[in-house]
Amino acid sequence: MPTLNELANRVADELAAHPEELRVAVSRVGGARVIDCGGAVTGSLRAGLLMARACLADLADVTVVPSPLADIPGPAIQVHTDDPVRACLASQYAGWQVSVGKFFGMGSGPMRAAYAKEEVFHHIPGKEEPACAVGVIETRKHPTEEVVTSIVNKLPRSVEKLTLLVAPASSIAGNIQVVARSVETALHKLHELKFDVNQVVSGYGIAPLPPVTPDELAAIGRTNDAILYGSRVTLWVRADDELIEAVGPKVPSSSSKDHGALFAELFARYGDFYKIDPLLFSPAEVTFVNLKSGKCHTFGKVEPGLLRKSFFGE
Amino acid sequence: MPTLNELANRVADELAAHPEELRVAVSRVGGARVIDCGGAVTGSLRAGLLMARACLADLADVTVVPSPLADIPGPAIQVHTDDPVRACLASQYAGWQVSVGKFFGMGSGPMRAAYAKEEVFHHIPGKEEPACAVGVIETRKHPTEEVVTSIVNKLPRSVEKLTLLVAPASSIAGNIQVVARSVETALHKLHELKFDVNQVVSGYGIAPLPPVTPDELAAIGRTNDAILYGSRVTLWVRADDELIEAVGPKVPSSSSKDHGALFAELFARYGDFYKIDPLLFSPAEVTFVNLKSGKCHTFGKVEPGLLRKSFFGE
Amino acid sequence: MPTLNELANRVADELAAHPEELRVAVSRVGGARVIDCGGAVTGSLRAGLLMARACLADLADVTVVPSPLADIPGPAIQVHTDDPVRACLASQYAGWQVSVGKFFGMGSGPMRAAYAKEEVFHHIPGKEEPACAVGVIETRKHPTEEVVTSIVNKLPRSVEKLTLLVAPASSIAGNIQVVARSVETALHKLHELKFDVNQVVSGYGIAPLPPVTPDELAAIGRTNDAILYGSRVTLWVRADDELIEAVGPKVPSSSSKDHGALFAELFARYGDFYKIDPLLFSPAEVTFVNLKSGKCHTFGKVEPGLLRKSFFGE
Repeated sequence: MPTLNELANRVADELAAHPEELRVAVSRVGGARVIDCGGAVTGSLRAGLLMARACLADLADVTVVPSPLADIPGPAIQVHTDDPVRACLASQYAGWQVSVGKFFGMGSGPMRAAYAKEEVFHHIPGKEEPACAVGVIETRKHPTEEVVTSIVNKLPRSVEKLTLLVAPASSIAGNIQVVARSVETALHKLHELKFDVNQVVSGYGIAPLPPVTPDELAAIGRTNDAILYGSRVTLWVRADDELIEAVGPKVPSSSSKDHGALFAELFARYGDFYKIDPLLFSPAEVTFVNLKSGKCHTFGKVEPGLLRKSFFGE
Repeated sequence: MPTLNELANRVADELAAHPEELRVAVSRVGGARVIDCGGAVTGSLRAGLLMARACLADLADVTVVPSPLADIPGPAIQVHTDDPVRACLASQYAGWQVSVGKFFGMGSGPMRAAYAKEEVFHHIPGKEEPACAVGVIETRKHPTEEVVTSIVNKLPRSVEKLTLLVAPASSIAGNIQVVARSVETALHKLHELKFDVNQVVSGYGIAPLPPVTPDELAAIGRTNDAILYGSRVTLWVRADDELIEAVGPKVPSSSSKDHGALFAELFARYGDFYKIDPLLFSPAEVTFVNLKSGKCHTFGKVEPGLLRKSFFGE
Repeated sequence: MPTLNELANRVADELAAHPEELRVAVSRVGGARVIDCGGAVTGSLRAGLLMARACLADLADVTVVPSPLADIPGPAIQVHTDDPVRACLASQYAGWQVSVGKFFGMGSGPMRAAYAKEEVFHHIPGKEEPACAVGVIETRKHPTEEVVTSIVNKLPRSVEKLTLLVAPASSIAGNIQVVARSVETALHKLHELKFDVNQVVSGYGIAPLPPVTPDELAAIGRTNDAILYGSRVTLWVRADDELIEAVGPKVPSSSSKDHGALFAELFARYGDFYKIDPLLFSPAEVTFVNLKSGKCHTFGKVEPGLLRKSFFGE
């Protein structure tokens, strides 16, 4: 089986092969291939879907589907995967803060599995020494040579080629790749709650696509709200029902004391991203299908009113 | 045009080429290729989609779509085909009871068109003498050499290679392949009602995916309920309106005296699958688009309350 | 990058390669390849999707999705594109009236970009001198040699091969290719309102698929009603908010004095297609996502009651 990074690299090659149609820009920075999908370029819906797939190490299907919420226009982004731990936690989770001088961006994608020093890798499979590496950085700024060097320095020597896909949440493609994180946020929350995520065998998620905005903070707010108040996730797990009943109510965003306020309001209230309750970051609704018992448990629910307020200011 | 079995065999090859990703197990039993998609293995959503496609002789599109029912979480399975008679009746219908010693499983897939001794083949096209044959068996037990031999003995001499895809309804993949039968149940019911199904030129169907359960009987109950109370089918037909108006009200599950009870309740009531009204087995809602007259007739309706009771015990 | 016509020609080749499965008929008329998808043949859902893709110069994804309207059974047709101006206006818009003797049909597809004498080409890119040309004609009649000659005479000398895809709205495939015009009608209406459509960078649309009827006028009525009263479109634009606020309310069909009546009623009232308010022809609902400001504006709304009346006579 190919490495996670090899799988993602093939998707990156698709992006690089059609820069005009996808409105992306391919450049070389210090030996790395950088594919700008929404920083200095307009990007596209299709580029967003490809970014999302690369970010998931191509271990998930990501599609544009009709909004299931009657009063939320526009499409939704649907994800399903049979390898949720490697796709979402070893790869898609934005656990790598790329911070070099004035450059800052949340890093995700399978390059994390090549680095593999994050705490989560003590609990999940995925660590690898690939020949190529692919990372996704949420940023409007173009990575500099220093940024590339700092990343390369953290990767194993096996890596001969690095590709970085970059776009801010405030772009068409960046918006999609963030909203494709419905299943990932459920898994990450479960991991935070000390649930053994290796018990999750498949995942399905859907979240409404918010309107893109050039205001970076507002964009981060809307994409977070799309997940927190608009996403529905189903996880097929093999676990004890008592465990699910104990952890389940803590999984959806409604379990957080900060639930009910829009992300932008919370940011204004606390003045700092890291003061917002970290347990807020999870889907609006999570359903556990327990393959062991056949019991089905649903926790949380979508909040269309909050979504309308976030997306349309109503 | 390739045979139905050849079309299905290409899909089986896709399954066999990715056992690790799809969590299936390929083995040889008495000269046949057996692909276990959910008996002794976990299987996967993608394996379920491939099983469904193979079962339909790859003459239908089968996709994971958002649930159209607001209070039923999780995805639904959508099917559409331009060859509904061959895809659903000559191939997908589970008309072959594979019963050998202690082994029992409902058999479907295009191997039925190679056998072609079932009554339905007097009324539909599809009979063929293919070089390879593909069958799907709903079972948790692995087929034995005796099972393979009993199947091979019923197939024409032209068949040089047999592939069996096996999974119980109580597995992730088996659950999907059963729920992909929305259009099939409409066609089979029409055939039972003596409607000439060759008048049906295309079909579309959707049914909610129930939570998987390891309890075989409960799994059969939920998947049946998903069809009986949750599926909506559209058939494009060329027929006389009087015929449609006469047969239409008898097509949806609501036409049966047993409608309104969950499958598991009916099984408990009668103590025998074959005592349940056979006319119950049809979609919740069927729409006929008459290409001849332009009239559109809808019969039956979905019952979200019964689905919630079946899926979530509410 | 290939020409629009080359892109469409590859889709036409897919149609021509599977005449039996797709129920289409390929013939040669005066040197042109004619693919009948619903005139003298039954056609199919898949042929309709391919026709729609060819009509959009393969610059859009066209898929069958669940109906988002609970009381409208059957599927809907979803379209999304990152090149809406070329896909929809330079190609898909039915701006070429093919009228030769007794033959009449609305012409669309990228052959329009090869002709490029329509007024709209003064305002949009897309004009090209391709080696092959592809047109779509909404008609039940087979094109004659005179029809082919009249088209060829309007095309540039570069064109060595012409393909015509033909089907009436009263066929399965023709029905789909018309209903795939949700985004196109929004763009065309914007162009009529003197909005610079080059500000639209991506588009998403969905419209319910009406029941096919053999009555040509009724078929045109239902497909128009599907767009006018059932379609929802999202456009990603880069424009001034004042411009959007000024033009937006005029975009959906509700802005027209003829809104509220079914197309067939309007045709009966005026006795002439061209006396119906041309500003009626637009989606039921249009959402503008302004990439420049982040503001999101929605105008109009779907009318399920009118759709039920149009589709089911209720």
